[in-house]
Amino acid sequence: MNARIFVGDTRFDAIAANDRGVAYGDGLFETMRAHRGDVPWWDAHWARLRSGAERLQIELPQASMVRREAVDLLAGDDAILKLIVTRGSGGRGYAPDMDAPATWIVSKHPLPPDSPDSGIAVRWCETRLSVQPRLAGIKHCNRLEQVLARAEWNDPTAIEPYAVEGLMRSAEGDVVCATAANLFVLREGRWLTPPVDRCGVAGICRAWVMGATGAAERRLDVTEVETADAVFLCNAVRGILPVAKLGGRAWPLHPQVVALRDRLAEAHPGFAA
Amino acid sequence: MNARIFVGDTRFDAIAANDRGVAYGDGLFETMRAHRGDVPWWDAHWARLRSGAERLQIELPQASMVRREAVDLLAGDDAILKLIVTRGSGGRGYAPDMDAPATWIVSKHPLPPDSPDSGIAVRWCETRLSVQPRLAGIKHCNRLEQVLARAEWNDPTAIEPYAVEGLMRSAEGDVVCATAANLFVLREGRWLTPPVDRCGVAGICRAWVMGATGAAERRLDVTEVETADAVFLCNAVRGILPVAKLGGRAWPLHPQVVALRDRLAEAHPGFAA
Repeated sequence: MNARIFVGDTRFDAIAANDRGVAYGDGLFETMRAHRGDVPWWDAHWARLRSGAERLQIELPQASMVRREAVDLLAGDDAILKLIVTRGSGGRGYAPDMDAPATWIVSKHPLPPDSPDSGIAVRWCETRLSVQPRLAGIKHCNRLEQVLARAEWNDPTAIEPYAVEGLMRSAEGDVVCATAANLFVLREGRWLTPPVDRCGVAGICRAWVMGATGAAERRLDVTEVETADAVFLCNAVRGILPVAKLGGRAWPLHPQVVALRDRLAEAHPGFAA
Repeated sequence: MNARIFVGDTRFDAIAANDRGVAYGDGLFETMRAHRGDVPWWDAHWARLRSGAERLQIELPQASMVRREAVDLLAGDDAILKLIVTRGSGGRGYAPDMDAPATWIVSKHPLPPDSPDSGIAVRWCETRLSVQPRLAGIKHCNRLEQVLARAEWNDPTAIEPYAVEGLMRSAEGDVVCATAANLFVLREGRWLTPPVDRCGVAGICRAWVMGATGAAERRLDVTEVETADAVFLCNAVRGILPVAKLGGRAWPLHPQVVALRDRLAEAHPGFAA
């Protein structure tokens, strides 16, 4: 793998056995789309990382050093750049050592395969998102719920094995997001997206879409999603993913979604065809 | 640190940058008290690990190999032995690679300092435990809630800075456990402990105490804890920790707790004075 590992300013070959990232998922991450060696949405990713670090009281490494290493690693390529920042090592059990420098890892991955222009098939996950306002919105490394949800359709006995994403509901029953993407639905001429104040992640592409469409945050139930005029998912790696199929429902590609994809391609050259 | 890292049967010097333990907290752990190089409760720890591995669909390494490495690392000492098992590397994003061998880490740590015989001071944590039946009971590595709760009394502005443990409530308001221990209360001559089917961990020492006392599982509210005739915490590292102080309440050492500590010392020589 193409990765560089640091603790504070010092580069290491691998992660220490007592890193709190491994022990407790005590960290944050960002997954970014790079275009010709640059990360067009770097500032937005770093701002979210900083807000997560404030919430968890993790001291971030120097932004300039992380960016320098990231750009060097990217070496001019189109790729996915992942950044993990953990609380480093040390502390007694759960009690953090407030003076320990963070561990940070930049890694480079191939772009995902293009998804069909006409949209993707999506299923409902059984695994629910627990409600935890102190962790909601930030992109922390406690992701077992997403791992369990995503594993549902590797199960050969599962229905809809062709689904390429799964929608997750909160423990309270409202629809929140996909396992690795945010959700937008068009109803009565207006784009809506679930709030992420009780669970879910405040996606970088979600923020862009909200700005571009004027979408409103609103709690949505299953029926409101299934009876929407159009549905799409989005994230900062794959951009806008129109939903073509969910449960018994099928949607043709909606002209507003096509127009939004074109705007995204202008805003972020990594999403241009 | 005194640690050994393996992926499957192969020993490594450190953890890979793309290990799913670091990325997602996608793993399980056990923390065990060793006595003269042996782990008296090994079988119970392994059984809990196996039940967690079934829940998360993680393939465990060979028990015999793990135990051999653990005993070799312990080298006859009294110590704490920690075992982490992650889902290893690989997969695409959250989707696990079902064929990847697990990463496992055994590490050896000094025994914690003895706590006062008369009991410890405990506080109420503000951080709540979210409700997630699919993860409740098992000792998985998504522990940010415990990290946040434990960090509450490093805050110099926090009340009761002398507290040595903190009690956590679930999002639903019932009292569940301490950040790193289970909870027992004596009411009307009967020992009670909260169930761990919605959040919390099914502790190894908790199971021993339930067997030894005939304690019943019951949801408890704050008042039921504060008005109990006796309260103690327990875990497999520190054994039984009588609670001497909580909020405005103080408890003298209860004779039943003294008797139970004596029984524990007979059952597990690591807890003998």
